[in-house]
Amino acid sequence: MKIKFYYGSGSPFAWYVWLVLEHKQLSYDITTMSLRNGELKQPEYLSINPHGKVPTLVDDDFVLWEASTIVEFLEEKYPDYSIIPRETKQRAIARRYVAEGYNYLYPIIRRIMDLTLMRADGDGDQATIKMEMENLDRELDYFENAIQNDYFLDEISIADLAIYPLLALVKRIHEKRPLLVVGGLIKPKLAAFMNRIEALPYFAVTTPPHWKG
Amino acid sequence: MKIKFYYGSGSPFAWYVWLVLEHKQLSYDITTMSLRNGELKQPEYLSINPHGKVPTLVDDDFVLWEASTIVEFLEEKYPDYSIIPRETKQRAIARRYVAEGYNYLYPIIRRIMDLTLMRADGDGDQATIKMEMENLDRELDYFENAIQNDYFLDEISIADLAIYPLLALVKRIHEKRPLLVVGGLIKPKLAAFMNRIEALPYFAVTTPPHWKG
Repeated sequence: MKIKFYYGSGSPFAWYVWLVLEHKQLSYDITTMSLRNGELKQPEYLSINPHGKVPTLVDDDFVLWEASTIVEFLEEKYPDYSIIPRETKQRAIARRYVAEGYNYLYPIIRRIMDLTLMRADGDGDQATIKMEMENLDRELDYFENAIQNDYFLDEISIADLAIYPLLALVKRIHEKRPLLVVGGLIKPKLAAFMNRIEALPYFAVTTPPHWKG
Repeated sequence: MKIKFYYGSGSPFAWYVWLVLEHKQLSYDITTMSLRNGELKQPEYLSINPHGKVPTLVDDDFVLWEASTIVEFLEEKYPDYSIIPRETKQRAIARRYVAEGYNYLYPIIRRIMDLTLMRADGDGDQATIKMEMENLDRELDYFENAIQNDYFLDEISIADLAIYPLLALVKRIHEKRPLLVVGGLIKPKLAAFMNRIEALPYFAVTTPPHWKG
């Protein structure tokens, strides 16, 4: 057991790395950190990851953080069961989708979460939530149109494993706040894509425990 | 002339790609887009980059966006004058710094810009600005401590060329709003690092025109 993986349930970044670890059939030791009780900001964890975020990976004694960086490292060090295409342009497109998911889709999801599911004292301003839901629906159209046949590229890649956890957050918002939803959100091609990822043999082990059932 | 580069003056992401193009001694045709008059959201540009952002790179007929993705593509397609270290762990650390700059430092800079230099009707709430300035100063300490000798790693890398433009934005905020500054911001090691980047033979050509003089 030489890989240690620090995970947090509900973090799309940690989920991405977990899916990649599973896809590559690596063996690892997982530590689940609480995202809510301040555990990430305790000195013990900050000595491993100075930002107090998940995921963190420890490979032998090499400590690494930032999800996309961890995934590039895993692909380079453990090239079997490759998850980044080989051809230069295809590699670029796969990385571009990951960046687009994190730079454009995630910030909207994050703002909606902060206005709804993350609040203990009721949802925030309804007009703001509606506007963000419209932004979310528009951004999801981009990804709906990007799906090729089964995946974002011809074969499964980092694009799929990074974007699936973001879509799972959207689905969760939809389930928990159905009345706030504007537009179709997860449309047919993305819905079929999600089913496809959920049918992967290694998917079930990575499902956040408190999302089950 | 086979590379077309769409740039915007003041965008740290576009500046990063420009520094990499220059470092790699590539020839390119540059198009400067206005970031303020809506030019990025015109149909003509949106047909090239659906997000209406800079930078965009066109290599032969391959169109690519998202700064970090463009840089990985350039390094793979044009390996001369390499800007990503060769050794796996060093590569990971270089990429990690880029991600940290964009994920932790840039959002604070962006919020301060939006509260100050980007406003036509005077600065925003002073207490919020003060809080963000404190966040900025703390985040900069991380990078101050990360500098090795001359650069973030032993040799010049993507870490340096990505983070320099962020520091230049900090310096600009400092110059334009000296009274709002909290803490030292650009401390000695980062100041020396900035001088070192500014002394690179290819630096001057990339300086935003309206920042000169």
